[in-house]
Order: sequence, then structure tokens, then C-alpha cells
Amino acid sequence: MKIGILGGGQLAQMLALAGFPLGQRCVALDPKADAPAGQLVPLIVADYDDRAALDQLAAQVDVVTFDFENVPVESARYLSTRLPCFPPHLALEKSQDRLAEKSLFTDLDIPTAPYFPVDTREDLTEGVAALGLPALLKTRRFGYDGKGQFLLREAADLDRAWTELGGQALLLEGFVQFERELSIIAVRGRDGQTAFYPLSENQHSGGILRVSRAPYRAPELETQAQSYMDRLLNVLDYVGVLALECFVCKDGLLANEFAPRVHNSGHWTIEGARTSQFENHLRAIAGLPLGDPSARGDSVMFNCIGKEPPLAQVAAVPGAHIHRYGKAARPGRKLGHITLTGQDPAELREREAQLAALIPTDSADPSAIS
Amino acid sequence: MKIGILGGGQLAQMLALAGFPLGQRCVALDPKADAPAGQLVPLIVADYDDRAALDQLAAQVDVVTFDFENVPVESARYLSTRLPCFPPHLALEKSQDRLAEKSLFTDLDIPTAPYFPVDTREDLTEGVAALGLPALLKTRRFGYDGKGQFLLREAADLDRAWTELGGQALLLEGFVQFERELSIIAVRGRDGQTAFYPLSENQHSGGILRVSRAPYRAPELETQAQSYMDRLLNVLDYVGVLALECFVCKDGLLANEFAPRVHNSGHWTIEGARTSQFENHLRAIAGLPLGDPSARGDSVMFNCIGKEPPLAQVAAVPGAHIHRYGKAARPGRKLGHITLTGQDPAELREREAQLAALIPTDSADPSAIS
Repeated sequence: MKIGILGGGQLAQMLALAGFPLGQRCVALDPKADAPAGQLVPLIVADYDDRAALDQLAAQVDVVTFDFENVPVESARYLSTRLPCFPPHLALEKSQDRLAEKSLFTDLDIPTAPYFPVDTREDLTEGVAALGLPALLKTRRFGYDGKGQFLLREAADLDRAWTELGGQALLLEGFVQFERELSIIAVRGRDGQTAFYPLSENQHSGGILRVSRAPYRAPELETQAQSYMDRLLNVLDYVGVLALECFVCKDGLLANEFAPRVHNSGHWTIEGARTSQFENHLRAIAGLPLGDPSARGDSVMFNCIGKEPPLAQVAAVPGAHIHRYGKAARPGRKLGHITLTGQDPAELREREAQLAALIPTDSADPSAIS
Repeated sequence: MKIGILGGGQLAQMLALAGFPLGQRCVALDPKADAPAGQLVPLIVADYDDRAALDQLAAQVDVVTFDFENVPVESARYLSTRLPCFPPHLALEKSQDRLAEKSLFTDLDIPTAPYFPVDTREDLTEGVAALGLPALLKTRRFGYDGKGQFLLREAADLDRAWTELGGQALLLEGFVQFERELSIIAVRGRDGQTAFYPLSENQHSGGILRVSRAPYRAPELETQAQSYMDRLLNVLDYVGVLALECFVCKDGLLANEFAPRVHNSGHWTIEGARTSQFENHLRAIAGLPLGDPSARGDSVMFNCIGKEPPLAQVAAVPGAHIHRYGKAARPGRKLGHITLTGQDPAELREREAQLAALIPTDSADPSAIS
């Protein structure tokens, strides 16, 4: 089976690697000629809305998927008229607009931070009056890795935030005090079969995921997260891997945002689960039965951002699994990840400390600079 | 790092897949334009003794290795003058000639079946007088998967065997009554560091490996096998993965033959060990520290020979990991393998039975036909 992927980043790369042993062959489409998936699979270099390029992709594959949720919905819709295209474009549409995403959560009785749509300076004043401060002003579209956000701490911040972000569709979110950030990754097959990965605990810094630990063992939260996921998967008639980021608050689990694709917080599943998120995404969109998502021991995943760690030293850490994406180093850029697996928690903690000391500090990380 | 591989079969394919996340990029050289590694990496189509092609390969890689031990030693020697080339050509040389291999075992005090070199019809008579019947007459060179062998049961077989195999360098081997076949896979780094995989128990039929189960737990045999391996690795100043097939006899472990490469009986290590044989071979030849070879639970590997099993049904078996090589079906041809992993032995046995029922019988398997 031939798989088309819109987006040629590391997620496409890891999908292609997972698909190869299944007999699947991938082709990626990306506007950048140096998109990393091109090191592994044929790459069509074109804009995501280039109809001729979409036709070219459609002509050579059996099913299309995404490594990037900000592909124009119109392109996904167009491809869907030609061949199976998963996840469904409705999922892209909802995930591309923070208001649509929040409204979906609300419609499905999935708790989320309070929010207020902001289109004008007056809306902002009104929103702050309603939600209080601190609050987060975010662009509704194309935000990722903490970009397009402004933290409002005091009244004087409103004008500055408006100067920076005003003039586009925005969303004000009430500030949520949370104990920790978790994510859940689910997969749904073409036949509606679902599978859930264990919860992962995530540490962000400078808006970028740094470390994920899985499984995070909290049966009640897990049940809650799976219930949120079930509602999302069903209402979207979803096929493939879906990731949901949540906050653990005093009142329980608040949904933050979802990603209609394989997700950085699920990279640990390559070695840490019986079937990786990449393989299960491919099984789902290919109409194959899903694989067992359960964990094999404990895993810790470190992102390598801005600069790669010393290869030989990392390789010397027992249980360290290296994933380099073959990308040129640049501050703030995800260049690879390392997953540490182990059975014994004490030993794993020791090796985690050993590995953490080898991961270079990202010069783009404001928390690292300050 | 760029890795050149002489031979573009499924072993090269799996090496390339394992190397990608390490940042390694492979190039294969193979005489066949449809060599399966070409589906994944650049392929130089040329004979193994084509100097211009070897130069072309050498010019674009940092280190050379093999997925096939019957590459002309002269080519390996030539490449070694240009760049690092592992395993050393001495290992190829010994493995290509059954007499050299047996003599090496004898020199290292590694027990092996009694043997007698046969160049003439008179040698054959003399050999049979010395070793008795039954005995196996084998070509000294280019035998694999049971090809180039004749089982002598009675005196009348000698002439028939001579008619079939005579005129080339042969070796007569005393027939060994064995309880089971085991193999051990070891890896040695550029710095002399060694690591040993657990023993695997192998079932052959029609001269081809069908099933491997690992770990095979027998501490005394394991110690013995590791000791044999240590001697081989050291005397050959070996770098990379080395596989040794053994027979378990009343008197202990007899070495049968070694393969200076990643080995079919080690395919279970992809999911069943903490570091696969493929990754460890690449770590070794790249001068990186070796990864942990220990097992993660129990594994059973089935070869798919001649015909592929039904994909969706195999995918539905929990713990089944699919590996398709993208080769056209042909009787006797290795088209893929499936590794079943599990923690619970009873459950694993049940799933093994489920999976075994899905593996098509190979029409080239004489034991299946009869």
C-alpha cells in the first residue's frame, strides 16, 4: 500500500520508517525542498494548496494522511473527493481554530479553560472583565509551540498584547493553575475500533515539549481522559492517531488542545509500547486491525532542541534509544529525541539523570536563558 | 555517517532502517537491479568484483559492511585499503570455505562435527571409512540454506553423491545426532567491547530456517557458546555482528557454522531485545558504544517463505510484529518474518499456535511436500 503524507517533517519520517516493514511505501508533499522526510521517501516539493501537486500525490498513493495539522482544509477536502484521506478534514478544521476547538470541547461536555473570543480591542476588555487576570491571549489560528501567545498579567498588558497580536482572530483564555500536564494518545480504525495509549506526563519549557514520561499512572485521570477521547473520536468519525493535551487541576482534567496526528508526546511508544503510535496510525488508515498500545516498562523521552547531544555519550547510556531527524541545527528546532526505557524505576531515574546531563540547553528556550 | 553495504537483500534493508534514527545513511551495492534494499536506499547495481563500482561506493561512504558473506574476499580486501571495512575480510574468507571454517574451530578448541576434506573420489571413500555413515557431503564454498549438500546413508550413495557434487572442493562431515539447534549472536565494537545476545533455538526445514525462539534458557550452554564466540571474535579481530549456529548433542555444544553478518536467527531482536542486532552491528562498525543486547520478554520469530501470510489476520494477533521485505513471491524465497513478543509464556504459546496456523506452507519445502 502507498501512503501519501501532507507534510514532510520528522513525523512523516517516523511514519515512513514504521510503514516500511508493513509493506507500506510513503510519498510526502512539503513546500520545503529540504523537508527531512525527503531523506527517506520520495518528496513532492509544492505548496499545500497546489492542486496539480495534490493531483500528482493522489495519483500515486492509496490513502492520504498528514504530519501537520495546518494544511489548508480545502486541500484535505479536495483530496477526500479523490481517495481516502485520514484523519477526516473536519478534525483538521476544528484543530486549526482555537475557538472551534474550545467550542467542540464545550459541546461534548469536555471541561476546558474558560475562553472568550476576541476580535476587537473592546472584546479584549470585555473578556478580561469576564475571565479576570492573569489570562492568555492567543491567536485562533496557526499557533504552535507557544508561538502567537501573550500572557496578560495586569491591566497595562492589554494594550501591549493588542499591539502585538491585534487585527486577527484571537481567543482569550482564563489562566489555569495546574499541577501537571498530561497527554493521551488514542487511535481509531476505519471500522471504529479504538485503542488508548497510557497517559504521558509532559514538561514544556519556552512553549516547547522537553520531556515526556510514560506511563503516568493515575487510573481515575486515565478513565477521564479516555472518556474525553471517546467523545472526540466519535463525533469526528475519526480515523488514525489523535492526541489530546490536558491539565491536571484541582477540579480534575481540563482539555487544553488536541492534535489530529501522531504527537511528540507519543514518541516514547516506538520502544516503550507494544505498538508505536506511528505503526498504529498507519494500521488505522490502512484499514488493518490496531496493535496493542500497552506499555513495555517505563519510558522517558527527551527532545533534542536547537543542538544535538554528543552521540557516543548518549549511546553509552544503557536503554537510551537515539532518534536523529537529520535536520540542520537551529535554535528552537526539534532535531531529534532520545527515549530511555527500563524496567526498574530506581535504575531508570539514575539513567535519566545521566542522560539529562547530556542534553544541550536550547539557546532559544527563554527559561534557559533567564 | 554514511554506510556502504555489499549486498542489497533484506538484511541490508533492515540495517538501513535501524541506521536511519542513528543519523546513518546507507548505500547498497548489489548485482540485481531489483535488490530489495533499493526500495529504501540508493542502490549501485554492479557485480561485487566491479572495481569501478567499488570505487564509486567507497567514494560516498565512511565505512563498508556486508549483508552477504559470499562477496569476493578480494573485493573486501580492496575496499579495506581505501576505508574501514567491517567485519574484517579474514572473517569472510574463513566463512566462505567450510574447511577453513572447521579448521578454525579446531584451532580454537571449539568442538565441531568430525570432518574430512574431499577432493577426489578416493578421498570420499577414505573419508567415509574414517567418519562412518551416515555422513554429509558438502561443497566447501557457496553453500547456503541447505544447498550443495548430499546426505550419504549407505555405501551405494557415494557414487550418486560424487556424480552430483564431485569435481569441486568438498568436505565430508560426520553425521551428528543432535537434540536441538541453537544459535548465538555476538557483537564486537571497534574498541574490542563485546556483547552477547541470549541463545535462540532454531527450527529448520528443507535446509531453511523456519522458526526461532528466544531466549533459550540454558546457562551452561550459554556460557559455552559465549566462550566459543569470544575465541572467534578475538582471533578474527572482529568488528560487527557475528552469528554462530550450534548443535546441542549428548556431549555438549558443537559449533556448526558461523555467519559474519546479521543473521536470520537474530531477527527477533528487533522487538525482542533492548537493542536489535541491526542497530548493534551499525553501532559497532561506526565506533559507537554497543547497546544492551538483553531480551525483553520472550519472542518467537516465524519466517515467511515462498508465500506471504494474510496481512490483516496476522496484524490481529496481539504482539505480532510484521516485517515484509517487498520481494516478489517465489518458492523457497524469504519474503518476510513475523516476530511475536510476550511476557506470559502460556499466552505466548496460544498466540504462537494462532500465528503458526496463518503462515503458509512453502511449496519449496521438501518436508512439507512429502
